Amino acid sequence: MQRRHFVRLAALAASSASIPKSWRDLAHLRGAPAVNAARLNAHLQALRQFGKNEAGGISRVAYSAADLGARDYARQLMREAGLTVRTDAAGNIFGRRAGSDARATPILFGSHVDSVPDGGNYDGQVGSMGAIEVAHALKDAGVVTRHPLDVVIWQNEEGGTWGSHLVTSDPTDRELATVATSGKTIREGIAVLGGDLEQLGSARLRTGSIHAYFELHIEQGGLLDKAGIQIGVVEGIVGLRQWEVTILGVANHAGTTPMPDRHDAMLAAARFTEMVNRVVTSEAGRQVGTVGRIQAFPGAPNVIPGKVVCTLELRDLDDPKIERLFRSVQREAQSIGVNNGTTFAFREFVTHESALSDPRLRTIIGDAARRLGFSTMSLPSGAGHDAQNLARIGPMGMIFVPSVAGISHAPAEFSAPDAIARGADVLLATVLTADTTTL
Amino acid sequence: MQRRHFVRLAALAASSASIPKSWRDLAHLRGAPAVNAARLNAHLQALRQFGKNEAGGISRVAYSAADLGARDYARQLMREAGLTVRTDAAGNIFGRRAGSDARATPILFGSHVDSVPDGGNYDGQVGSMGAIEVAHALKDAGVVTRHPLDVVIWQNEEGGTWGSHLVTSDPTDRELATVATSGKTIREGIAVLGGDLEQLGSARLRTGSIHAYFELHIEQGGLLDKAGIQIGVVEGIVGLRQWEVTILGVANHAGTTPMPDRHDAMLAAARFTEMVNRVVTSEAGRQVGTVGRIQAFPGAPNVIPGKVVCTLELRDLDDPKIERLFRSVQREAQSIGVNNGTTFAFREFVTHESALSDPRLRTIIGDAARRLGFSTMSLPSGAGHDAQNLARIGPMGMIFVPSVAGISHAPAEFSAPDAIARGADVLLATVLTADTTTL
Repeated sequence: MQRRHFVRLAALAASSASIPKSWRDLAHLRGAPAVNAARLNAHLQALRQFGKNEAGGISRVAYSAADLGARDYARQLMREAGLTVRTDAAGNIFGRRAGSDARATPILFGSHVDSVPDGGNYDGQVGSMGAIEVAHALKDAGVVTRHPLDVVIWQNEEGGTWGSHLVTSDPTDRELATVATSGKTIREGIAVLGGDLEQLGSARLRTGSIHAYFELHIEQGGLLDKAGIQIGVVEGIVGLRQWEVTILGVANHAGTTPMPDRHDAMLAAARFTEMVNRVVTSEAGRQVGTVGRIQAFPGAPNVIPGKVVCTLELRDLDDPKIERLFRSVQREAQSIGVNNGTTFAFREFVTHESALSDPRLRTIIGDAARRLGFSTMSLPSGAGHDAQNLARIGPMGMIFVPSVAGISHAPAEFSAPDAIARGADVLLATVLTADTTTL
Repeated sequence: MQRRHFVRLAALAASSASIPKSWRDLAHLRGAPAVNAARLNAHLQALRQFGKNEAGGISRVAYSAADLGARDYARQLMREAGLTVRTDAAGNIFGRRAGSDARATPILFGSHVDSVPDGGNYDGQVGSMGAIEVAHALKDAGVVTRHPLDVVIWQNEEGGTWGSHLVTSDPTDRELATVATSGKTIREGIAVLGGDLEQLGSARLRTGSIHAYFELHIEQGGLLDKAGIQIGVVEGIVGLRQWEVTILGVANHAGTTPMPDRHDAMLAAARFTEMVNRVVTSEAGRQVGTVGRIQAFPGAPNVIPGKVVCTLELRDLDDPKIERLFRSVQREAQSIGVNNGTTFAFREFVTHESALSDPRLRTIIGDAARRLGFSTMSLPSGAGHDAQNLARIGPMGMIFVPSVAGISHAPAEFSAPDAIARGADVLLATVLTADTTTL
C-alpha cells in the first residue's frame, strides 16, 4: 500500500517504524489520531463474504440473509471499536461512543451495507467500515470528544434510502407497504432487522437533535478518477425530477403512407430524445438528462407508431435550473410536435428536491483533506444518499473517494485501498474539527 | 350520385332517362357495356352486415362466422351474375363465365372479403363486388368474351395474402400451421371454408395458366385523394424488407454519469430513427422507411439504456433502391455509433421482393380510364395484395380508386360511390381489351 501523505509525514518524522505501529506514532507526532488503513481494508475484504457472487461482487439486497450477516459483522466490529451497539426501532444500527459533554448533541456518521442485486464491494461499504474505523482509531488514540459520536448503518439504502427516511419523516402506511427488492415490504423488513414498528416514533431524529451528519462514500460518476483528484467535497445531492412523456401522432400503414403525410410519434420521440441531450449539454454545469424507458404503440414493424410513451429525467444541484431546463425541453417539444403533427404531454411522477451540504462542513472537510496533503475537488452527488434525508434535520457533509472509471452498482466497482484510507482519514479529521466547532 | 363521365356522356347522348336504364343505354351508345353503379353500391352496402361493428366498420377476420357469411353472399351474387360457382381446394371462391374459345386461358379478376379486426367497408370489398358487377354487366349486355372469365374471392388476404399464396406456391407444413387472427391455423381455415387440404395441388395455378390477372382496390396511401385523381394505374407492389436493429452501449447510473461520458444506446437509437427519416426522404421517389417498434434496456427512468432493440422497415418498388438505402442507413448508423461509443447490428427477418405489374396491362388500364374520361396517375402500391402472388405466374394489372384521406384498416375508411363505379367501369373496359389482346 502506498499513501503519499504517509511518505511525506514519515520523512518529516525521520521515522521508519513498521506501518501499523507507525500510523499511530505519526498521528501522535502531528497531534491527531489516524485510521489504521490495513485494518480498514481487511474489514472491507472480510465484509465481501456476505452475499458474495460468482462475478466477484455481492448480491446483498436489504432484508436478505446476506444483509443480516453483514449487519451482524458490522455490530461485531463496532463492539471491537469500543462502541455501545443498539438497533433503533426502524432497524438502523447505531454504535455510540460517549462524549465528555453530557448535554452535547451527537455527531452522526456512517453509511449502509445493503447492495443492489449483483452490486459491488464498495458502495456503502466504504463509508460503513470507514466510520467504524474512525471510532476504532479514536479508541486506539484514547481520544474523547466533547460530543457523543454515533456510528450508523442505515437499513435498505439501495431500495430508496429507507433507513434514514424512516427516522427523518413520519412514514405513511402506504410507504411502509412498499415491496422491497427482497420481496418483503418495508414493514416486514423492519421486523426482520430487529426494529419495532410499534415504537417507530422513538427512532425519530428531530431538527436540532444532531450536531452534524457525515458520510464517506465512493464517487459513482468517475469525475474524481478522471481528474486524478483524491478527495471530493460534496456540494450536495442533486434534485431529481421524472416525467412520463406521451407523444400522440396518427398510427398508419407503413407501406402506403407517404413520408410527408406521416404523423409519426416515433420520429417525434427520436427528435425529443436528441433535443433533451442538446438542451442539457448546451450550458455549462453538471446537469444530466436521460430518456431511459420507451415504448411505441401499436409497436409493429409495419405500422407507423401513433403513440409513444417514454420517460424524461433531469437532475441538478440547482432546483431552479432543473425547472428552467424542463421549460426549454417543453418548449422545444412543442416545436417538434408542430413540425410533424404530433403532440407532447408531460406527467411528473417523481420529484426530489436537491439537498445541499452545509457550507461550514464543506470548509471543514476541504481544509482537513488539504491539511493531510490530499488534492480536493468540489462536486455534486448525482446519486441519492442517506445524507439527503439527514440534511433536513441538521448540518450535513459528505466526503467522496474515487471509484475507478466511475463504475458502480456492478461487480467491477473498485476503489483503491489507499484511496479508501485517505477518505477515512479525512472523515476522522472532519469529525474532530466539527467536534470543536459551533454549528 | 354524381358521375362526371355520366354527365358528359349524357350530354352527348342528349338523353335524360332514369339512371339504371340510362347506364345501359349510354353503354350501347358508346359501343361497350358499363357497370350498374347503383347495383354495385347496393351490394357493397348489403355486404356491410357481415361482421358489422358499432364503430360503423366491420370485424370480419378470415375463417370467422362473419367471413363465412360474406362469402356465401358473394356466391349468391355470383350466381345472380350468371357465374358458375366453385370453391377450390385452398378455399378460394371462383365464379366462371364461359368464353367462346375453349382453348383460351381464363382472365382472372377479383379481390377478398375478409378484413382486419375493426376494419372498414371498402378494402378488398370494392374489388370483390366490382369484379362480380363486371360479370353481371357483361351478362346484362349479352357480351361473350373469347377467354373464359374467372371472378375470384381470395381467402384470408389480411392474414398475409394466403389464398393467392396457396395456389401460386407449394406451401410447407410449417406455413399451413400458421395461426391466423381468428385463432385457427391456415390448415383449419381451409377446411372451414370448404377447401380440401388433400387436394391442394388441384388448386395450383401454374405459370402460363391464366391470360391475365386484374384487381381493383382502394388506394390506401391517400395519394389519389390528395391529388384529386380518379384512377390509379398501379406500377407494382413494393418490395419490403424488415430488420431488427440492436444498439449496444453501456448501461449506467443516470444521476452520476456525466453527459460526455455516456454510451447511451437510447440517444443512438434516437439519432438512428431521425437519420432513417432523413436518408429515406433525401432523394426523390415514393420509398418509405419506418421504425415501428422499440425497447430500451434495462428500461428504467434512472438508468442510461445500455441496449436498445428496434425495427427498421424499408419499402420501394425498386429492390436495388431498397438495398442502396439500407447501405446508407448502415453506414450512417456506424458514424452515429462512433460518435457516442455504441454499436449497431442488423438482422434481416422479413424480405419480400417487389412485384411489378405487366407494362402492357398498365397501358390497357390507363387507356381504358382515359377513354372513359377519367384522370389517371401511375403509382406503386405500398401495401401488399394478392396481385403480388399472381404476378409470379402471369401478367398482372391493378386498378386503384381513391380512399378518402388514405384512411384504411379502420372503420373511417371511405370511398365515394361514384369513385367505386369509375373503378369498376375501368375494370370492365380493361377485361374487354385484354380479351382481344395477345399477351
